[in-house]
Amino acid sequence: MWRPFFQPYHLIIVQDGDPSKTIKVPDGFDYELYNRNDINRILGPKASCISFKDSACRCFGYMVSKKKYIFTIDDDCFVAKDPSGKEINALEQHIKNLLSPSTPFFFNTLYDPYQEGADFVRGYPFSLREGVPTAVSHGLWLNIPDYDAPTQLVKPLERNTRYVDAIMTVPKGTLFPMCGMNLAFNRELIGPAMYFGLMGDGQPIGRYDDMWAGWCTKVICDHLGLGVKTGLPYIWHSKASNPFVNLKKEYKGIYWQEELIPFFQSVALPKDCATVQKCYLELSKQVKAKLGKVDDYFNKLADAMVTWIEAWDELNPSSASAEVANGPKK
Amino acid sequence: MWRPFFQPYHLIIVQDGDPSKTIKVPDGFDYELYNRNDINRILGPKASCISFKDSACRCFGYMVSKKKYIFTIDDDCFVAKDPSGKEINALEQHIKNLLSPSTPFFFNTLYDPYQEGADFVRGYPFSLREGVPTAVSHGLWLNIPDYDAPTQLVKPLERNTRYVDAIMTVPKGTLFPMCGMNLAFNRELIGPAMYFGLMGDGQPIGRYDDMWAGWCTKVICDHLGLGVKTGLPYIWHSKASNPFVNLKKEYKGIYWQEELIPFFQSVALPKDCATVQKCYLELSKQVKAKLGKVDDYFNKLADAMVTWIEAWDELNPSSASAEVANGPKK
Repeated sequence: MWRPFFQPYHLIIVQDGDPSKTIKVPDGFDYELYNRNDINRILGPKASCISFKDSACRCFGYMVSKKKYIFTIDDDCFVAKDPSGKEINALEQHIKNLLSPSTPFFFNTLYDPYQEGADFVRGYPFSLREGVPTAVSHGLWLNIPDYDAPTQLVKPLERNTRYVDAIMTVPKGTLFPMCGMNLAFNRELIGPAMYFGLMGDGQPIGRYDDMWAGWCTKVICDHLGLGVKTGLPYIWHSKASNPFVNLKKEYKGIYWQEELIPFFQSVALPKDCATVQKCYLELSKQVKAKLGKVDDYFNKLADAMVTWIEAWDELNPSSASAEVANGPKK
Repeated sequence: MWRPFFQPYHLIIVQDGDPSKTIKVPDGFDYELYNRNDINRILGPKASCISFKDSACRCFGYMVSKKKYIFTIDDDCFVAKDPSGKEINALEQHIKNLLSPSTPFFFNTLYDPYQEGADFVRGYPFSLREGVPTAVSHGLWLNIPDYDAPTQLVKPLERNTRYVDAIMTVPKGTLFPMCGMNLAFNRELIGPAMYFGLMGDGQPIGRYDDMWAGWCTKVICDHLGLGVKTGLPYIWHSKASNPFVNLKKEYKGIYWQEELIPFFQSVALPKDCATVQKCYLELSKQVKAKLGKVDDYFNKLADAMVTWIEAWDELNPSSASAEVANGPKK
């Protein structure tokens, strides 16, 4: 189903689990494939920051990519159709989202003012109509919604059938739950913040990889004056994962997030943090200082955040010192 | 067109302009009609706070109403149809919006989690899923969008044809342009903040009545822990007002709003402001102190804000000292 949409692009496949298994990639795709042995070989001791047996392993692909725009997608996601029955080119919509500005400083009631047939409404300050560069495009899911295990258990039959024809900016100062199922971002603007954390094998938690990246990314975007959009495009999410397995992975996250959200809501980054890397390292310090007491896991995570940036800079030497063009807007 | 939807409710008609003219109300409606003579008689010298020859006069109706839920609508708005061709019962949707909670503290990517077929997504803190009481329901417009004069002039043919099937909470700390064309609110929760200011006859500005009310309402809702929703229901906006006339009314507002928005973004209300009236009087002080230097108009407006509250309390003696049940959440 994805062939007509993905074939023009370069694919990076991060193979999770047993590296001796062979993944068969259909003919005609331009791809790189990395398994755990490759990750260990390329990163050496720094490979410890890349999760194993969890979807978090995908962020290795963000690090080795040489492209400006990244699209990441789960393996159980298929091409969705819009209400007219037309197949949705998710990638095209994500790229449109990333190429048009965001409006984090004031809410536009007619949604994305840069979409065709829309604009800024009466009362929208003209000085804010230029917008800011868009760093993240968060797409949604028809059919199986992205629910946590308790909600899955309570509403096993719920399906998302509502096609909401909108894209919007998540306002500055507002956190959102970023799902990695159907997600695109500008790697040059925000790449080093897209770390999916320590999850899965050997860790006390799973299924919070994308959430963690989302919270970190959003506070850094807010600090650097970058935008995050959510809404279109939809993908078709085919099957719900097992809620009992999910509950086991999630339960610590479910109570930890009650402390994580106030932490991220109150994070302040100093003015001199003018690159994503500097912001991220500062964030890792604050994670250690303020979340280390919630659980020792966050001390390990804070260390892994530093390792991630070291590995990123090693593989991307030119980006290490690049300042974000538009600088911090606080 | 509105008969089947409005007939079950009580109507308050505020007649603008020449009071000697007679407005013919079709049979079968339960209504009160007020013209300028009535407003002057009822409010005496305090009638100065009610605008003349501007849609702002409608807020007199909010003050004299004895109902809990208010719906206000422009005279050029008709019943819209949803994509299936069904006529939209705007009032019913507004009441649903006002009866279900809002979620201003964290963004839900699947929009209103209380709608049928929707819920909170993975990563949404459970402690925030109860939501807060909804004070305002802001509906949208198909056909003629609510654009300012410059945008009307530049895009005379633009029509809003995008039916976005969503309701969402405007996050805490985010201002929005509140349009009075299709607006509902809980009068008990937020009524005294719904003052539409000094506009039209004898004033240097028009068409900012609803915007002013929206900015004041939003900062007070944020302070008191109340919610503002926007999205469904749509009405059909039949005709664009004259952009040249609008430009004359708006042009001061267009540059004043560049100072108004930063003012409202930075307003802080003291903790002891636990009623809408107290918040509003405090806001009037800050308007005088900080916006009086932008133009003397804001000194007059600040005085009118005080007069409005005095008149409100005179006509609504029981509400004068009522504390908002859930109190300030700062």
